[in-house]
Amino acid sequence: MKKIKIEKKILSENEKCSIENRSLLAKRKKLCLNMISSPGSGKTTILVRTITELKDRIKIGVIEGDIQTDIDAERIRATEARVVQINTEGACHLSAVQINKALKKLPVDDLDIILIENVGNLVCPSAFELGEAGKVVVLSVAEGDDKPAKYPAIFAKSKALLINKTDLLGHVDFDIERAISDARRLNKTIDIFPISAKTGDGMVDWYDWLIKIHEQTNTQK
Amino acid sequence: MKKIKIEKKILSENEKCSIENRSLLAKRKKLCLNMISSPGSGKTTILVRTITELKDRIKIGVIEGDIQTDIDAERIRATEARVVQINTEGACHLSAVQINKALKKLPVDDLDIILIENVGNLVCPSAFELGEAGKVVVLSVAEGDDKPAKYPAIFAKSKALLINKTDLLGHVDFDIERAISDARRLNKTIDIFPISAKTGDGMVDWYDWLIKIHEQTNTQK
Repeated sequence: MKKIKIEKKILSENEKCSIENRSLLAKRKKLCLNMISSPGSGKTTILVRTITELKDRIKIGVIEGDIQTDIDAERIRATEARVVQINTEGACHLSAVQINKALKKLPVDDLDIILIENVGNLVCPSAFELGEAGKVVVLSVAEGDDKPAKYPAIFAKSKALLINKTDLLGHVDFDIERAISDARRLNKTIDIFPISAKTGDGMVDWYDWLIKIHEQTNTQK
Repeated sequence: MKKIKIEKKILSENEKCSIENRSLLAKRKKLCLNMISSPGSGKTTILVRTITELKDRIKIGVIEGDIQTDIDAERIRATEARVVQINTEGACHLSAVQINKALKKLPVDDLDIILIENVGNLVCPSAFELGEAGKVVVLSVAEGDDKPAKYPAIFAKSKALLINKTDLLGHVDFDIERAISDARRLNKTIDIFPISAKTGDGMVDWYDWLIKIHEQTNTQK
């Protein structure tokens, strides 16, 4: 029986389109980040707070990926940010083709940063490049400090790690030093921000990082 | 260009093997449940407490699925339960073929119940039958009450829903009635147990259910 290399074929089609997206964003000097996490780590709450607190400094547009519903997009819309909803209808990750279509619906030239909220899944989205400048992995302290060791791929590939829900640290067993050292073992250059998107704690450092990366993108030749 | 129905092919190969597993388990009258959830919902803690507190009444064996590491299997092993570790090396779900091999390593005849802890992923594992008698979905209250609406497939397919980490209810925004009614809208017959595997709260109802289903399996002709 002839074996067909399915994974390679799908990835390379996705890759082709991700290169197109990356080129489109680079030409316009727009920063695009791909946010990846388990369901319920707090990506949408992070986005809502970030958009609201930075609205006088930078204009953020959002591409919102969900299997079903537009619950998250509605929450983003309430901030008055521009948002495009993608429903994957069962698929476990966003694809570069979907991002390509979504970028055409966003007023890219009027935005400073485009943040992609991927489908809640710590595994599959890490394997699909969307054309982003970098990945941001979000880990909630309620998920446990063993997650970098158990799900290494996304921690190895991300530019930044947001350790969210630090307001719960007194109520859950989470050794933040273990999570940080495991993440750094996988990825020496990862920037790590312990935050609480609920209370606002630590968010300023994340904002400074975001603005710094945005400015670097903007001044690139 | 000829199109190949990839998904169908993979699923049907998996399905064939899942039927074999189901038949093997039915012949020996062994209950097998497939536990599915996001990373960090508390599946391993539930297993450890369940095995420990039921050890004088029923003998539980575990098939432990992880992308990497044997952290969870070691925790199970400390209870003296029999456990087989499967490392998927990147794959986002367990397959029926892996379960078939694992069943051969377990002393199935000496066990009452076999519990499979799937890879932490609320999306992909729901599409792959392993030969189990039923699925048990675990949702931590820290993940948010919108998860049944946003990730409907696994809630629609499960025999039981464990709403875990109820000890955090005072510290997170989680409307338990909303989660329950959304789950019931997807699945009228699902049995729902709010529990805290950490404090033990609500665990007795889950044990009673487990023993009831085990006894039904045992008396089936």
